[in-house]
Amino acid sequence: MAGPKNTSKILEQWPWLKGYNSSLFTDDVVAAAIVTILLVPQCLAYALLAGLPPQVGIYASILPLIAYAAFGSSRYMSVGPTAVISLMTAAAIAVLPEETRLVSAAILAVMSGLILIVFGLLRGGFIMNFVSRSVVTAYISGAALLIMISQTKHVLGTQADGTTAFGMIKSLLNSLSTTNIVSLMFGGVCIVLFWLSRQYLSYGLFKLGIRSRRAKLLARIAPIVIIGISIAISYGFELPQKYGLKVIGDIPRGLPMLQVPIPDLDMLQMLWLPALVLALVAFVDNMSTAQTLASRSRDRIDADREMLGMGASNMVAGISGGYPVNGSMSRSAVNYTAGAKTPVSSLIVAAFMTLSALFLTPILKYLPLSTLAALIIAACFSLFDFKSIWRTWKYSAGDGFTALATFIGVLVFGVQWGVLIGVVMAMVLHIRTTLRPNMAIVGRFPGTEHYRDAERFNVETNEFVKTLRIDESLYYANARYLEDKIARLVEDSPKMRDLILMCPAINRIDASALSSLETINSRLKSAGVNLHFSELHTHIKDRLAKTNLIKNLTGEIFFSQKEAMDSLEPEPDWSRFSDHVDIH
Amino acid sequence: MAGPKNTSKILEQWPWLKGYNSSLFTDDVVAAAIVTILLVPQCLAYALLAGLPPQVGIYASILPLIAYAAFGSSRYMSVGPTAVISLMTAAAIAVLPEETRLVSAAILAVMSGLILIVFGLLRGGFIMNFVSRSVVTAYISGAALLIMISQTKHVLGTQADGTTAFGMIKSLLNSLSTTNIVSLMFGGVCIVLFWLSRQYLSYGLFKLGIRSRRAKLLARIAPIVIIGISIAISYGFELPQKYGLKVIGDIPRGLPMLQVPIPDLDMLQMLWLPALVLALVAFVDNMSTAQTLASRSRDRIDADREMLGMGASNMVAGISGGYPVNGSMSRSAVNYTAGAKTPVSSLIVAAFMTLSALFLTPILKYLPLSTLAALIIAACFSLFDFKSIWRTWKYSAGDGFTALATFIGVLVFGVQWGVLIGVVMAMVLHIRTTLRPNMAIVGRFPGTEHYRDAERFNVETNEFVKTLRIDESLYYANARYLEDKIARLVEDSPKMRDLILMCPAINRIDASALSSLETINSRLKSAGVNLHFSELHTHIKDRLAKTNLIKNLTGEIFFSQKEAMDSLEPEPDWSRFSDHVDIH
Repeated sequence: MAGPKNTSKILEQWPWLKGYNSSLFTDDVVAAAIVTILLVPQCLAYALLAGLPPQVGIYASILPLIAYAAFGSSRYMSVGPTAVISLMTAAAIAVLPEETRLVSAAILAVMSGLILIVFGLLRGGFIMNFVSRSVVTAYISGAALLIMISQTKHVLGTQADGTTAFGMIKSLLNSLSTTNIVSLMFGGVCIVLFWLSRQYLSYGLFKLGIRSRRAKLLARIAPIVIIGISIAISYGFELPQKYGLKVIGDIPRGLPMLQVPIPDLDMLQMLWLPALVLALVAFVDNMSTAQTLASRSRDRIDADREMLGMGASNMVAGISGGYPVNGSMSRSAVNYTAGAKTPVSSLIVAAFMTLSALFLTPILKYLPLSTLAALIIAACFSLFDFKSIWRTWKYSAGDGFTALATFIGVLVFGVQWGVLIGVVMAMVLHIRTTLRPNMAIVGRFPGTEHYRDAERFNVETNEFVKTLRIDESLYYANARYLEDKIARLVEDSPKMRDLILMCPAINRIDASALSSLETINSRLKSAGVNLHFSELHTHIKDRLAKTNLIKNLTGEIFFSQKEAMDSLEPEPDWSRFSDHVDIH
Repeated sequence: MAGPKNTSKILEQWPWLKGYNSSLFTDDVVAAAIVTILLVPQCLAYALLAGLPPQVGIYASILPLIAYAAFGSSRYMSVGPTAVISLMTAAAIAVLPEETRLVSAAILAVMSGLILIVFGLLRGGFIMNFVSRSVVTAYISGAALLIMISQTKHVLGTQADGTTAFGMIKSLLNSLSTTNIVSLMFGGVCIVLFWLSRQYLSYGLFKLGIRSRRAKLLARIAPIVIIGISIAISYGFELPQKYGLKVIGDIPRGLPMLQVPIPDLDMLQMLWLPALVLALVAFVDNMSTAQTLASRSRDRIDADREMLGMGASNMVAGISGGYPVNGSMSRSAVNYTAGAKTPVSSLIVAAFMTLSALFLTPILKYLPLSTLAALIIAACFSLFDFKSIWRTWKYSAGDGFTALATFIGVLVFGVQWGVLIGVVMAMVLHIRTTLRPNMAIVGRFPGTEHYRDAERFNVETNEFVKTLRIDESLYYANARYLEDKIARLVEDSPKMRDLILMCPAINRIDASALSSLETINSRLKSAGVNLHFSELHTHIKDRLAKTNLIKNLTGEIFFSQKEAMDSLEPEPDWSRFSDHVDIH
C-alpha cells in the first residue's frame, strides 16, 4: 500500500474523516464503551470455544479492529472473534498436536487473511455467489448445534473432546459420571438468565417506561452484570478451591508480541482447506452483515474492498498472537444502535481492549468457565433457524435437500465439509435444471419467411432437409442432450440428407459443446447427412472459424435461414451420398 | 427383472432376435473369434495393470459379456477389462492391505455395478452431463501417462510401486540399478512392434493389395502374432530360468467360483468414493463409445438402459472373481468392423473365453510380463490427446484451464481426484458466466405503454417511482448481484420511494433468490422505499403466494407494468414513510 499523497486520496479511502468533530467523537466513544462491555466476555468465551487460551481472544480484539477501520468499507462493522469462526478454528486445529495449536490458530488466521487479500486484489468478490443462502442458513444452524454440544462439557465441568457431533456426544456421555454439581448449577442458571435477558429484558424495560432504544442497549449489556455477579460469587465463596469449579484462571497480563508465525509443510497441508473454507464463510457472513448495516444508512459496500479489509484484519490477528476474526453481526448492530458514527468507534474499542489486556485480567481470573459456556450456548439459540430450513423445503424440495445435507454434513463430517457439500450440491442442482435446452424442429409458415415450431404450428417441412432451432447457449452440461436429440432425429428421419441447426439465440458455445458439434458432424457424416448452420451470431461465427468443426463441416454456414433453405431445398445433390449409403 | 411373458416383450428388449438366422450367426462367430484373439492378451495385461493376478482378467471377460448382451442397449459393444478402469481399480485397491486386494477389486466391481443399477432405475442417466468433454479428454491423457509410468517397471523387470505419478517415478528411479536387460530388450522391441503394427500395418497391407477392411482386421490381430513369438522365444531359450525374465507364470486352470464378496466397514469406507467415480467415468466413457457405434448403424442408445447394462456387467464381474469392466472402444470397433451383427457375437466371445480359461492357460505361462507391459504402453500412445487440450485452450482459456487442472490432478493426486477436480471446476466456471443477469432501469416510451431501457432509449423516468426490469431467472448465484444492484440504486436515488421489479422473463426463483428478495424488501423498508412487482408469470406468483416475502411485502404485486405505474405514479402516499425517514 503506497502512502496516500494528498488529502483527496485520503478522503476517498476514508470519506468519514471529512468534517469529523468532537460531537461525532463523543458519539463514537459512547458506542465504543458499550461494544467493549459486550466484547470482553465474548472474546474470552470464543477463545475458549476455539480451544485456545483466553488471552488469544483479547489479542484478536485489538489490531484487527484497527486494520478493518483502515481497509474495510463498512462504517459500523465491529470485527473480532465470532462463534462460527471460532468453531471452524477449533475443528481445523483439533487434528494438530496439542502443543502446536496456538501457533496453528495464528497461521490459520494469516492464511485466511492472505487468501482474502489475494482474492480481493484479483477482484474475486464474486466467489461469495457460490454459497447459496440455504447453505449458509443450514450451515449456521448446524454449527450452532455443534457449538452447543461442544460447550456442554464446560457446563458439566467435565473433560470431553471430539470434533464431530457424534464424537463429542460419545465423549460427553462417557464423562457424565464426573459432572461437577456447582459447575452445572452455575451454568444452568446463567443459560436461563442470559436467554431471558436476550429475549425479554428489552421489552420489560420498555414496559417499565424506558425508551425503546435505551432499553435495547441496557438489555444488551445485561450479560456483563451476570458475569460480574458470577465472578463475585465464585471469588467470595472460594468455589474453585472448595468445590473444584473450573475458572478462567491466570491470564498473562500485557500486550501480544508481534511475530509472523512460520508454518511447516505438514501444517500447511492440514490447514489450506480449512483456511480456504474459513475465508469463504467469513466473507459471506461478513458481507451479509455489512449489507444489512449499510442498507440502514444508504451506504455502499464494495465486495472487493471488504475482502481486503477482512484479509488485513485476519493477517494482523495472526501476527499479534490472535486467531481468525470476522465481522460480528451482534456487536456491529450494538455499535450502530449505540450511536457510533464512524470507524473511529472501532479504534476506540481497540484502545479499551488494550487497557483490558493490561489491567482487567486479574479481575477475570475467577470467572467460571461454565458462565462463559452459558453465554455461548444462550447466543447459539438465536443462530438456529430450522424454521427457515423448513420454509426452504416447502418452497423448493431441491433447495431444502441441499440445506438438509449441509446441516447433516456439518454435524457428521465437520464444519468445512458441510459447507463444501452444500456448495457442490447447489451447483449440481442448478446445472441439473439447465440440462435440457429448448429446441424444436421448425418449418416455414406458408407464404412467409418465418420459421416456427413444427409441432405447434401448421408449417411446411421437408423430409430431406430438416431444421432444428436451438433456443439456448450450448455448454458442456447440455451438449450431450443435443447429441442425443440429433441421434434420435437421424433415427426417425431415414430420408434426411441435410440438417440445419438454426442458432438465433446462442450466445456461447464452450469447448465441450464445440467438441459435441464435431462429434455430431462426424456421426451425421457416417449416416450420410450433411450438417449446416444458420443465423449464427457474428462473434460465435468468428470464434468457430479456426476450429476443426468448420474445417471438417460437411455442410455450410448460412447467414440466414432463408438463404439456407434457398440453397438446399431446390435440388439436393444426391450423388455425393452414395459413398456412405453403401455401409448399411 | 420379471420374466418376459410373451414374444413381443422379448423382442422389445432384444429386437435383433427377430429374423436371426444362420447367416447372421456365421458373421457373429467370425467377429467373435477376432475379438477373442484381441481380448486374451488384453485382459491379462489389464489385470496386471490393476495389480491383480492374470486369471482375474479372464474371469472378467466371461459373465460380464453375457450380462451386457442381456441388459445393454448397444448391439456392437464389447465389454470387459479396459486400461483406464484397470488403472482406477489399481489406485482404489492400492491403499488396502495386499492380501485383501482380490476381494476388494471384486467388491469395487459389485459396488460400481450397484451404483449404476440404482442410477439406471432412477433414470439417472443425466448424471453424465456433469462430466464435460474437456475433462474426459484431459482425464484420459493423464491416465494414459500414469499407466505408461506404472508399466515401465515391468519393461525394466524391476520392483516399484506408488499410486501417483511422483510416487511411481521416485520408486522407479530407486529401482533402476536392478534393471533386467533381457526384460528391457523384450519390452523395448515389443513396444516398437506393437506401435508400428498399430500405426502402419493396415496401410502397408493395403498397399500390398489387400482390401482395406481386411487389411485393418489383419493389423488388429497382429499383436497376437507378436505375443506368440514372445512366448516361443521365452520358452525356447528358457529365458525365465536362465536370465530371470519375469513371465506370467502358472495361471489357475478352470472357471471362477460364483460368490458374493462381503465387504467389511473399513473397506466400504475406502471404496465408496472410488466406486462412485469409477461408475461415473465408466458410464461416460461407455456412452461415448456406444453413441459412436450407434451413429454408424442409426441405432438408438438409451442412457438409462445403458446404465443398467453396465451395472449388471459389473455386478457379475464382481461375483465371478473378476474386477470392474467397461465397454472397450477398441474391441467394440473391431467387433463392428469384423462384421458382428448382434450381441450374439459377445455371447460367443464369452464361450471362447471360457475355453481359454480351461485350456489356454498352460500356453500363456511363458508370456513375458514385459511383452504385456509393452502392449499396454503402445495402446496408451493413442490415448494421449495433448492436441485436443491445446485446441481447447486456444478456443477457451477457461475450458483449457479446467482440462489442465484435471490432467495435473490425475497425475498428482490420483485418478479419482483428477475427475472430481475437473467436474467441480467446470461447474464453477459455468456458474461464473451466469453471475450477472441482464437488468435495466426502464422508462416509458412517450405516449405509449412500452417500457424500455432508460440508458439506451429516450424514455420518461420518474425519480420517485423507479422500475428495474430483470431479464433472467433468479437463483442463488445471481441473487446477490440483484441485492447489490438494488443497494446501489438506493444509494444513487435519494428521492426514490417506490421500486418496481418488472419480471417478464423470470421462469424460476429458487429459495436463495426468494431469501434475497426478502432481504431486499426489508432493506428497502429501512431505507423508506416500497417494493413492488409487475408482470410476474402466474406459476411464479402462485409459488410465491404463501411465502414471507409476500406477507411482509411493503408494496404490491401488479399484473402489468401499466397497472403498476397507474397506481403508483399519480399521487404517492408520502405519509407512510415518516416512520423510517427519521432514522437518518
